Amino acid sequence: MSKSKAKFIRSLQLRKYRQKYHKIVVEGIKILNELLDEYPECITTICVQNDWYTQYADSDSTSHEIIRVSEREMQQLTSFKTAPPVLAVVEPFFSHAQLEDVTSGLCLYLDAIRDPGNLGTIFRIADWFGIRSIFLSPDTVEPFNPKVIQSSMASIFRVKWAYAELKDLVSDTELTVLAATMDGKPMSDFGEMKNGLLVLGNESRGVSDEALNIATDCVSISGHMKLGAESLNVAVAAGILCAHFQLMSGES
Amino acid sequence: MSKSKAKFIRSLQLRKYRQKYHKIVVEGIKILNELLDEYPECITTICVQNDWYTQYADSDSTSHEIIRVSEREMQQLTSFKTAPPVLAVVEPFFSHAQLEDVTSGLCLYLDAIRDPGNLGTIFRIADWFGIRSIFLSPDTVEPFNPKVIQSSMASIFRVKWAYAELKDLVSDTELTVLAATMDGKPMSDFGEMKNGLLVLGNESRGVSDEALNIATDCVSISGHMKLGAESLNVAVAAGILCAHFQLMSGES
Repeated sequence: MSKSKAKFIRSLQLRKYRQKYHKIVVEGIKILNELLDEYPECITTICVQNDWYTQYADSDSTSHEIIRVSEREMQQLTSFKTAPPVLAVVEPFFSHAQLEDVTSGLCLYLDAIRDPGNLGTIFRIADWFGIRSIFLSPDTVEPFNPKVIQSSMASIFRVKWAYAELKDLVSDTELTVLAATMDGKPMSDFGEMKNGLLVLGNESRGVSDEALNIATDCVSISGHMKLGAESLNVAVAAGILCAHFQLMSGES
Repeated sequence: MSKSKAKFIRSLQLRKYRQKYHKIVVEGIKILNELLDEYPECITTICVQNDWYTQYADSDSTSHEIIRVSEREMQQLTSFKTAPPVLAVVEPFFSHAQLEDVTSGLCLYLDAIRDPGNLGTIFRIADWFGIRSIFLSPDTVEPFNPKVIQSSMASIFRVKWAYAELKDLVSDTELTVLAATMDGKPMSDFGEMKNGLLVLGNESRGVSDEALNIATDCVSISGHMKLGAESLNVAVAAGILCAHFQLMSGES
């Protein structure tokens, strides 16, 4: 592998280069195989360690190049501590969430989620529960971050998403906007949400004041607050709330 | 800071040295402040970056030494990518879960959980919902791993735990042992669990055959399996199931 190619791939760990070159990096056998099955035309380069080379050498595509690399070379390309067997350069693609999605189903609004692992896990949760659109505040971590892709298990390619200001999504004053907070009403007070937004806030600060002003109500997950943990991880809270609203919709 | 001291602290990232020296490392302001409040006698050394030094220099303890370090030195001590402001060497302590706990409340059994972030998050969930005991299969990651401590937000010091074989916990054949699987009964089929074990399995392989043989029933979280994600993250599944059983117990 040429030095310039390696430098180029490494540069894609940073958002500015992903935007400049309009390329992203996908790591690991499972996610890459999913892309090869479903979206092969988006793959431009596959870097594969020797031991796994034959698995990919036969793929009868002329649209992407395959580069055989050593473990040491892979170690220099990866954004993870452990070098994956395979890593690909991919044209970024996703389904764009639309403004009208909020009136036709329950959507998520992520207000400054900063941890890539949390964002990816929330995409995976949405995908699991059939939530088709996620809106992200401008200061939420980018879904094309390699660690988000990894922890989403490729759900960022299946669930629709878009960056948006919350206020631009709720021009309709009838819309339910439910903020997950520490002092809202118990989850069991809420029945089905046929449409609207569930707002999940930043890992340390929670939902912003601006979003709280727009919210029509607040929901909490009851715990033994006085005794134990101060809060739940935001992705876990997302999972619990999504499971509740799916159950209420009678879809389970 | 002496080279030998730095080497000693770095060695504690590995389980064998934690066991050899009977010391663990706790990183970050929030968790350390909790320890200083609640268990100051366990702290032997605090390493603090210059900018935060005054916060810790005044702590009127003679039981621990305080070492002022540069950011660069901290970078060499930490197990994280970003150097924390403060890091402490601590005598490990925890409340030992007892065999009889499984008959007096709902407990968790973790069957080969390997990701430190998942284990820590599950401790935080248990702490939040008032589950007081977690049992770990021998091949589950160690709670004293710095990344487990970090993601548990110190819950590993509050929730009782012990390593145990599942078969040794269920000598009583009346005990409910519920395994979380992909093809169990829907969660909504299950009411209150006054006692017993909820078994959560490995991130890739799920609950082991051995544990499935011991389980009295299997529970699943309904999703849109055919369309979307293949599975939920195990910590998210733990959160959803714990929230359900807490709701069923009428404690919410």
